[in-house]
Amino acid sequence: MEQRLLEALKDISGNENVATDETGLLAYAYDATRLKGTPGAVVRPGSEEEVSKILSLASEREIPVVPRGAGSGLSGGAVPCRGGIVLSFERMNRIISIDTKNRIVTVQPGVVTADLQAAVEEKGLFYPPDPGSLAFCTIGGNVAENAGGMRALKYGVTRDYVIGLRAVLPSGEIIRAGVKTAKGVVGYDLARLIVGSEGTLAVVTEITLRLIPLPEKVITMTAFFAGVRDAGEVVAAIMASPFTPRCLEFLDSDALGAGARKIGYALPEGAGAFLLIETDGSLDEAARQMNGIHALLKNKALQTDITQDKAASAELWKLRRSTSQALFSIAPHKINEDTVVPVSRVPEALEGFREIASRFAQKIICFGHAGDGNIHVNVMTDRADPERLKAAEEAVSEVFRLVLSLGGTISGEHGVGLTKLQYIGMELSAAEIDLQKRIKSVFDPKGILNPGKIFP
Amino acid sequence: MEQRLLEALKDISGNENVATDETGLLAYAYDATRLKGTPGAVVRPGSEEEVSKILSLASEREIPVVPRGAGSGLSGGAVPCRGGIVLSFERMNRIISIDTKNRIVTVQPGVVTADLQAAVEEKGLFYPPDPGSLAFCTIGGNVAENAGGMRALKYGVTRDYVIGLRAVLPSGEIIRAGVKTAKGVVGYDLARLIVGSEGTLAVVTEITLRLIPLPEKVITMTAFFAGVRDAGEVVAAIMASPFTPRCLEFLDSDALGAGARKIGYALPEGAGAFLLIETDGSLDEAARQMNGIHALLKNKALQTDITQDKAASAELWKLRRSTSQALFSIAPHKINEDTVVPVSRVPEALEGFREIASRFAQKIICFGHAGDGNIHVNVMTDRADPERLKAAEEAVSEVFRLVLSLGGTISGEHGVGLTKLQYIGMELSAAEIDLQKRIKSVFDPKGILNPGKIFP
Repeated sequence: MEQRLLEALKDISGNENVATDETGLLAYAYDATRLKGTPGAVVRPGSEEEVSKILSLASEREIPVVPRGAGSGLSGGAVPCRGGIVLSFERMNRIISIDTKNRIVTVQPGVVTADLQAAVEEKGLFYPPDPGSLAFCTIGGNVAENAGGMRALKYGVTRDYVIGLRAVLPSGEIIRAGVKTAKGVVGYDLARLIVGSEGTLAVVTEITLRLIPLPEKVITMTAFFAGVRDAGEVVAAIMASPFTPRCLEFLDSDALGAGARKIGYALPEGAGAFLLIETDGSLDEAARQMNGIHALLKNKALQTDITQDKAASAELWKLRRSTSQALFSIAPHKINEDTVVPVSRVPEALEGFREIASRFAQKIICFGHAGDGNIHVNVMTDRADPERLKAAEEAVSEVFRLVLSLGGTISGEHGVGLTKLQYIGMELSAAEIDLQKRIKSVFDPKGILNPGKIFP
Repeated sequence: MEQRLLEALKDISGNENVATDETGLLAYAYDATRLKGTPGAVVRPGSEEEVSKILSLASEREIPVVPRGAGSGLSGGAVPCRGGIVLSFERMNRIISIDTKNRIVTVQPGVVTADLQAAVEEKGLFYPPDPGSLAFCTIGGNVAENAGGMRALKYGVTRDYVIGLRAVLPSGEIIRAGVKTAKGVVGYDLARLIVGSEGTLAVVTEITLRLIPLPEKVITMTAFFAGVRDAGEVVAAIMASPFTPRCLEFLDSDALGAGARKIGYALPEGAGAFLLIETDGSLDEAARQMNGIHALLKNKALQTDITQDKAASAELWKLRRSTSQALFSIAPHKINEDTVVPVSRVPEALEGFREIASRFAQKIICFGHAGDGNIHVNVMTDRADPERLKAAEEAVSEVFRLVLSLGGTISGEHGVGLTKLQYIGMELSAAEIDLQKRIKSVFDPKGILNPGKIFP
C-alpha cells in the first residue's frame, strides 16, 4: 500500500491504530471460514469521524475497505479478498446508553454481543439474538450479517431488534437510518436494508436496539430419540401446536455421538437423535409451555431431563454446545451450511440429506435450530484431498437444490459472503440479482466497500 | 387517456375491469385524507400476469400507475395526484393458503385485513397488526404503508410479519423478495425495503406473513384520570416496568368528552384523561400482567373497570373507538398527524402540544397509541376558512419541530404520501433523501410508479 496513503491513515487514527506489519496483517486476513485475503493495512478507527475520513480517502483512491467485527463470521464476509483496508472496530466498543424507560440501548459496533446482553440484563432488560459466537462476536458483525441464533425461534433475529443506525457511506457521508422510537415510517426503511447487507452498502457506526423485559424464568429440557425421523416429527408437532419454545435445537446421531465422546457423556441406550428445548416467561408461563411440549413428545422420547436450575441447565446444554467443535474428530474439515426449510419439511429434509450423503459417499452431519427449520448441514471433508473436496462440494450443491425444492433458503443466518456466492443464482433470479447490484451501486458507485462479496 | 391505451388495458383485464366513466373515476380519486387526483383510468387486474402487462405498457408510454388498496390511507398514498392508471386490487383478494404447520399465510394484496385475521383465527393462529381501518383496509395497503395499530405495542407492525413477497417492477418484471421460512439472509432485504415504500418501488402481488399462536385470553381495563399529566406518567411507568400490555391507548379530555357525548357515556366526575389497556396470553399470564399494571396505576386513577368477557370488553372499547369520528362535533375538519416520541417523553410531548395550541390559538386534541409514544395529534380546523387553516398548518409545523426535538418521528404509521411531503426535510437530511431518491430510480427509472409521493 502506497506510503502516502498509510501516512494519511496514521494521521487520521494515530500510528498505533494502523497496522502494516506482516503479523498485524495476518491477524486480520481470516474469518471463521479460514478463507484468506491479505489486507494492505488494518486501521482501528476511534470514532465515526475517523471512519468518515478513512472512507472518503479510500473512495478518492478507489481502495477496497472491508469492515470487520470479531472475524467470527461463517461466510467469509470479513475476509479482505481484494486487499485494501480492513476497518476493525475493537476501539469503537462503547455502550453509549441503556435507556430503561424506553427499552432501548445505543451502542458502537465493536461491543461484544455477550457484553451487551450482560449489561442490559443487569437492568432487567433482554436482547434475545444469540449467535453461537456471542461470547466474542460483535454487534456490528451481527448487524452486517443479520445474525440469528438459538432463540430466534421465539424472538427473531438481529434485524427484528435494530430500530435505528448511524452509518458512513463509501463517499464518507454520514447518514442516519431508522428511528429511536417504537414506530417510524418516514421514507424507505434503509436501516433494515443495511442490516444483513454484509458490509457492502455502508459502514455502521452506531446502532440503536429495542429491548424487551427479561423473562423471569427459563426451563430447559433435553430429550433423546431413537432416530432423526422421530425427532423431526416431534419438531414439526411442536411448531404445529399452540406452544412456542424459545429454543428447539437438534442433533443427529453423528453430532450426538461426537459431542458425547468429547465431553464423556453416557448416552441412553439406542439414542440416535437429540432435542434441546427451552421455554421462558413468568414461572407459570414457562412451566405451562414446557408441560404442553413435554406431553407432545413424551411417548416418542427414550429419555427426557427437565430443569429450572441455571447450573443444571448449563449441564444439559453441554451436549449441544460441544457439537460444532467435536465434529473435527470425524474429519479434518467441514463445509458448514445453514440451510432453512419450512419446519413441517424438516423430516423430509433430514431424510434427503441422508440420501445425498449416501449417493455422494459423503459423511453429512446435521444439527441446529430445528424449530426454525434452520439446519446446519456439515459435509465432512479433507481440504488436502482435492477429490474428496470436490465430491463434498457436489454434495453441497445437491443439498441446496433439495432445500430450495422444499421451499427453503440456502442461508438462514450466515450470509452469502464468499462461500455462497457461486450458489446465489440457485435462489435468486438474474433480475433479482441485477436489482440488488444496482442498489449496491447507489450506495457505493465506485465499488470500494467489501468488494467481491455476495454477487458473483 | 389515449383510446389505444384504454383498448390495450381492456384487452389485458377485460372491459368490465377498466373504468373510464366519470363516476367510476371519481370513486378512485380520493383516499381518507379527502385529497383528490383524477385518474385517466381505473383497472382492476385479476392476476400478477395482468399487473405485469399493465406495468410494461405504462412503462413504455411513461404513464403514472398508482396502486390502491381500499383507499383508507391517511397520507394521500393512493391519491392519483398526477392522473394515470389506478391499479385497484379488489379482484385479487384471495387467501392463497393458510399453512398451520409452518404458521404462515400467503395472500393476494386485496384481502381485507379483518377477513385475513378472522380466517387465521379460526385455525388458532394470530395476525396481530390492527390498523384502525382493519374492517375495510387491505393487506396490500397495509404492506405499502407499513401499517401499525393498537397492538403494535406488544406485537410490532406489518413489517414484522412480512417474510416474503412477490412484486412487479415498473418495467413489468416479476420478482420475489424474502422467503417462506422463519429465517433467510440471501442478498439484500428487498422484502422489507418494499414494505412501507408507499407503492413507489414495486407493485406487490402476493404476500407471505408469519403468524403466531392465538393468545388464549385477553383482559381489558379502562382507567380514568384527572388529567393528561397523570395519564402520561402512568403510561411512562408501565413501559418502564417489566409488564408489556398489548394495547395502551390514550384519550385526552377533549377526545374523551367528544367520545362520551357521541355514545352517551356518563364520565366519572373530574375525568380529564383516559387509558385503555389490554393484556393477553394464557389466562394466568394475562391476569399476571394486568394485576401488575393495575397496581402501578390504581392510586392515580379516578376509576378503573376490568373485564375478561368479550362482550363487556367491546363496551369498554366504545369510548376509544368513537373518538376519531366524534371529533367532527368540535370542528368541521381535522389535520390528523401520527407523531411518535420516546414513550418516556409522552408527558412532555402532551404538555408541549397544549402550549402550541394556546400559542397558535388552535384546538389540538390528542389520542392514540400512547404505549408506543405514537400520539395522534389532531389540529381541529375548517378548510373553508383559509386563515384558520393557515394557523392550523403553522401549529402542525410546530408539533413536528417539538416531536423531533424530543427524539421522535413525524410519522409512526400513516406514511409520508402527499400530506407530509413538505415536512420530510425536517426529519431526513438532504443526503438521506437523495440516497432514497436514487434507490427509487433503481426500481423505477422512468418514475411512473405512484409519482409525486414521499419526496418533495
